[in-house]
Order: sequence, then structure tokens, then C-alpha cells
Amino acid sequence: MTAAHDSFLQPVQRSHTAGDFSREEVGLANRNSGMPLEALRHDVTPAGMHFLLIHFDVPFVRSADEWRVELSGCVRNPLSLSVAEIQKLPARTLRVTLECAGNGRANLVPRWQTQPWEYGAVGTAEWTGTPLRHLLERAGLNESAVDIALLGADRGFDAGREHDYGRSLAPALAMDDNVLVAWAMNGSPLPPQNGFPLRLVVPGWYGMASVKWLKRIEVLAESFDGYQQAGNYIYRQKRGEPGVPVSTMRVKSLMAPPGIPDWYTRHRVVEAGPVELMGRAWSGGGVPVANVAVGVDGVWSEAALDPPQGEYAWRGWRYRWDAVLGEHVLQCRATDKNGTTQPLDPPWDNVGFGNNAVHHVHVTVR
Amino acid sequence: MTAAHDSFLQPVQRSHTAGDFSREEVGLANRNSGMPLEALRHDVTPAGMHFLLIHFDVPFVRSADEWRVELSGCVRNPLSLSVAEIQKLPARTLRVTLECAGNGRANLVPRWQTQPWEYGAVGTAEWTGTPLRHLLERAGLNESAVDIALLGADRGFDAGREHDYGRSLAPALAMDDNVLVAWAMNGSPLPPQNGFPLRLVVPGWYGMASVKWLKRIEVLAESFDGYQQAGNYIYRQKRGEPGVPVSTMRVKSLMAPPGIPDWYTRHRVVEAGPVELMGRAWSGGGVPVANVAVGVDGVWSEAALDPPQGEYAWRGWRYRWDAVLGEHVLQCRATDKNGTTQPLDPPWDNVGFGNNAVHHVHVTVR
Repeated sequence: MTAAHDSFLQPVQRSHTAGDFSREEVGLANRNSGMPLEALRHDVTPAGMHFLLIHFDVPFVRSADEWRVELSGCVRNPLSLSVAEIQKLPARTLRVTLECAGNGRANLVPRWQTQPWEYGAVGTAEWTGTPLRHLLERAGLNESAVDIALLGADRGFDAGREHDYGRSLAPALAMDDNVLVAWAMNGSPLPPQNGFPLRLVVPGWYGMASVKWLKRIEVLAESFDGYQQAGNYIYRQKRGEPGVPVSTMRVKSLMAPPGIPDWYTRHRVVEAGPVELMGRAWSGGGVPVANVAVGVDGVWSEAALDPPQGEYAWRGWRYRWDAVLGEHVLQCRATDKNGTTQPLDPPWDNVGFGNNAVHHVHVTVR
Repeated sequence: MTAAHDSFLQPVQRSHTAGDFSREEVGLANRNSGMPLEALRHDVTPAGMHFLLIHFDVPFVRSADEWRVELSGCVRNPLSLSVAEIQKLPARTLRVTLECAGNGRANLVPRWQTQPWEYGAVGTAEWTGTPLRHLLERAGLNESAVDIALLGADRGFDAGREHDYGRSLAPALAMDDNVLVAWAMNGSPLPPQNGFPLRLVVPGWYGMASVKWLKRIEVLAESFDGYQQAGNYIYRQKRGEPGVPVSTMRVKSLMAPPGIPDWYTRHRVVEAGPVELMGRAWSGGGVPVANVAVGVDGVWSEAALDPPQGEYAWRGWRYRWDAVLGEHVLQCRATDKNGTTQPLDPPWDNVGFGNNAVHHVHVTVR
């Protein structure tokens, strides 16, 4: 290993800041894609408007025919499966809302310097695939199996550590019929940036669990120690704490901003009179949304809920607002069936995970 | 008009800066989408990796059946056409590279505060549609016609001016068989964010000419004075100059970054030994690329060119580099058949249009 390489492995200095954004933060915002909030009008987010968080590079895969998934470790029958073989297993389609664990990070003061999401790192798609358990059952877990690592083809460095992007699932969750090895999104083959040809979809969890470009499954006799499992994606109040792993999504709601925007500020102008405010609300782990309140200048009213769209998909909400002249702040706030309600202010996390504070939209009514 | 609305119409103060990035710049970077540079490996950019610059909101269109295009003004037969009627006109498919006029803006020092593109605001797609001239011929231009305005369904404010996004084409260009009213991208109906159900595609020009969500065509007896034509998208050395309108793309090339990235900095690590560098080069107005030079630490060599993919599509280039240990700067530099070569340093423009300076990629070889 050369000196140059050693020096590269020193992580770049990053910090908390309440100030303007670094070139690196902007580079990540340009590469990764937020869902434009007007896309909340769609029950299912069109591919290309769904959020994208890509840790390393999108792998270049010419054809699904060149892809195999290796399943090894604490199993009776190690497997090497082609995409075609996986597509012969029993398939199902689930409508699933996925949110990036870092969504809302840029709204924390101070924020940790990394992908500076505001509100848009979310989307809902129809994923078609086979339950992961069908692969695991074919391989046959040994009794020594305690964790299942899922590794993608995307490789790079994070905080000085080189690794393939990877996450793990406890065996009970991995055997859940809703955890899919998916090959289609919204009825079409996965787009390259969404994981072509195969990806994991873990409904109810923040997006980091849904490993894209799934290449290897390793059944382990100990807990997976990959960086994205054991180092990153952990709620910590302060750096260096052991912390609590990020897992299911927290209850949250967003509003499709009414009216028309200003290009630079995205401030909204709305015509006076009746306006149908609408948006979406969701929670994690299959917990249903119980209600959504809409705030107009701090006065809260209950929104009507659209019919549910499945256990793991966001739920639409609507509220008729009689818009009167002037400046207004609109908010939305969901509560789930566990009785958990979105906080009014961002919950603190050292690197900005799990910010489910209420969405504010500032509008001028004319 | 209320005082509140008047105050809104005062444009937000923006400025030139060499410093960190504002929250508004980051908000735009999150909403709009750069093409991840690894997507340069694709001849045709998959939908969802093509760049997106959306001035206002993506219109919510339930079905192409609800859409009509109105064609009026200095014509003998004003038209109101459904999408189905337009799809019955003679169709063609063109492979077209589109680049945002503001691509590279964030690499200028100082830069104007708006969408802070670095390199990724480009993409190549196969657009299917009917030449705009078929609509114009059915309407019949009067002799008084001097400009043709094309207006989208996206409406908002820019620099305090409320307008539908709109651009114009001189009649000779509008009658060019390569200027399409397109309904498909890469063989599928346009995704909402790419202009569903109908958009203009003006090959060879920067992307601002290719109006999305095309709703109205107005044949004018004078020059179109819309903000995006007469106020914005004008090369100016200083604010307030009359300037020169932005039109066809300048010669440019990009490199797919070799090796693997660091998450935060996107710095690259490459294995020592032979590496195939590759990328794409293009110019504007149908001018072919003549050659591409590859720079390694300031020493230039000629790259091999892939076969051309059409008059308006980028051209692949390849170069075998024997990577040796250490830190290196890789560059690429295209020259077109007019003899125009990319500059080594960004050409100055007041708001950062037309930056076609050579692409630099910093790598560590291990």
C-alpha cells in the first residue's frame, strides 16, 4: 500500500455546521435525487421522480443474463442463482413507501455534512419480486445462523473504509413474506439506478435496508459488522456513542405545495378562495396512519384520509382551505395507530437520521 | 393586488459568490437531477438518469386524453389538437444529446446563485415524435409570421416575473424536420418529469429550447418577449448588457470516472495497471466531433472514437491508460469539425451559461 493510498484513506474532515453548504454537499445533492414534492399527487411515484440515494456508483450492467446472486455461509446448500432462476420463484407485488433515513437532515441546526436532504427523499413504488425466504429456504439455514448479510455490487469508501454496500437482516425479518428480492418497479424491469437487475425491498424500514444491485447473500454465525450496519445508520446523540440502530420509518407526512412556485426560493403564490390541500402520510413497520392534522398559521384541523393503499404504502390526505389574502404557514402532522405523533421540531441526531418533524410550507395568498 | 403580493414580487437578492452554497441553491440541486457521470457508459441514458431541470412544478396530468395543444396567432387555420391527433402525424425517432445551458455553472469563480450544476446536466435519449412543421403546415403560417412561441403548462415566477415557461423558435428552425413534438422517450411514453404527454425537442440546442408539457403554440408577428427568451438564457459579461442569446451547444466532453469513489468527496481510487478510460463528446447544431484528447497530468494523447450514433447524439471515446501509483489528474478535451476546441478554463458568463471547459477527474492509483 502506497503512501498516497494511505493518505487517501484518511477521511476528509467533516463537521457540524449551521452555515452554508459545502461543495461536497452540493455535489451529492446534484447526484442523488429528491422527489419533487408536487409528485405527492401521484399514488405511485413515477420512476424517475422516486428519490435516489446512491452511495457509490450505479453499476453498469449490460444484461440481466450476466448477473448471478451467490448465497453462502451457514447454509446446507450454497446457491448461485441467475436472475431467470429467481424469477421462477413465487412472485408478489407490493406497494411500498421508502424514505431515506437522512431525509430532513438539512433542516437540523446544526447539521452533519453529508447528503443535504430537506423533505424530498421519499417515494412509493410497486415492487415485484420473490420473498427472500424462498432463496433462504432453498439454501437451508443452519442452526448457527444469526444474521443474514445482503451485499450490493456498488463498492467504494466511506469514512475511510472500503466496502461493498451491505446491510443485514435478522433471520426472522429475512423470512418475512414481505421482504422481497425485486426485479421490477412499477411493472417494468428495475431501472439501473433503482437496482437493476435485482434489489432487496424491506417494507416499513428506512431505505438503507433495501440493498440495490444485490449480488451476495451471506448467512453468518455472528452479527454482520459491515460499515453501513455497524458504523453508519445508527442514531447517536453524540459522536462515538454506541447508539441505537436505525430501523423502521418514523411516522411522517408531507404536503404537495399549493399554488405556483418562485424558481429560486420555491416560495408559493396561491389564489384566494377554496384550495384543496393534499399530501401523503406514512409510518414504519406496517403501522397504519391514524390521522393527519393540517395547520394553518398554527391552528390545527383534521384532514380527510384517502382509502388505504396497502400495509406499507403512504396514505393520501386532503383538506379544504379557504385561502385569504396575506402570508401563511401551512403544516401537516400525522399520528399513527400506535399513538405516535410527528414532533413539531426536528429530533436531534448526530448525523441527521430520522427527522420526522412536521412539514412547513410558506405561501403568499393573492 | 395586496401589499403582501407586491412584496413577494420583489425578487430575492441573489449575488455572485465564490463561497459556500445557499440553502436555495441546495434546494434546487435536490429537486433537479444531474446525470451521475458513471451513466456515461450508456449509449442512451436510461430514463431517470437523464438530467432534469424543472423551472416550476411538474404538472400533474392524469391521462394524455385530457391534453390539447392550441396553435394560434398568425395562421390561416388555428388548431386545437389532441395527443391522439398529433400521434397520427408522420413520426420519427431521433437520438439526441441535451445539455442544460447552465451545466458547469458551479465551476465558475465567482458563480451566480441559481441551480449549481457541476458536470452532470446532460443526457442522451431517443425521442419519438412528429416534426413541429407538420403542425405548422396544417395551421398555415401567414406572411406576417416572424417568431413562433412554444409554451408549457408549468407556471411560476422568476426574477419577480410571473409566466408560463416558454421559448420561441425562428420559423426556419421551427420548420426543420429534426425539431420534434415528442410523446415518447426511449420507446416509452414520456415520464411526467420529462414532459408528459408532449414536449418539444430541439436537437443541437441547449435544453432550454426543448419546452416540456407543450400546451400552446403562438405564431407571432413580432419577436417573442417572454422572460425565458428575452430576459434569461442570454450570454452576458455583465448584468444589464443586451448580450447574445444562448442557442446551440458548445463543443464538450466528459469522462466516466474510473475506479471506485469516496462517498462524500467522490474522489476516485483506481487499481494500478491498464485502465480503459471512456466518455462522451458532443457539439451543437449538428456539428460532428472531430477528435478527443485525453490528458494525464497535463500530457495529452488522442482518444479513439466509437462509431457515430447520429447527427445529434454524443460520440463515445476510449483511451487505454497505464495507471501508475500516485495521485493523478485526468482530463478530456473535444474538438469539433468546425475546429472549435474546449477551453481549459471556464469561459466567463454572468450567470454561468455555456461552460464547456475541460472535465478534470482526480484519482489516486494504488
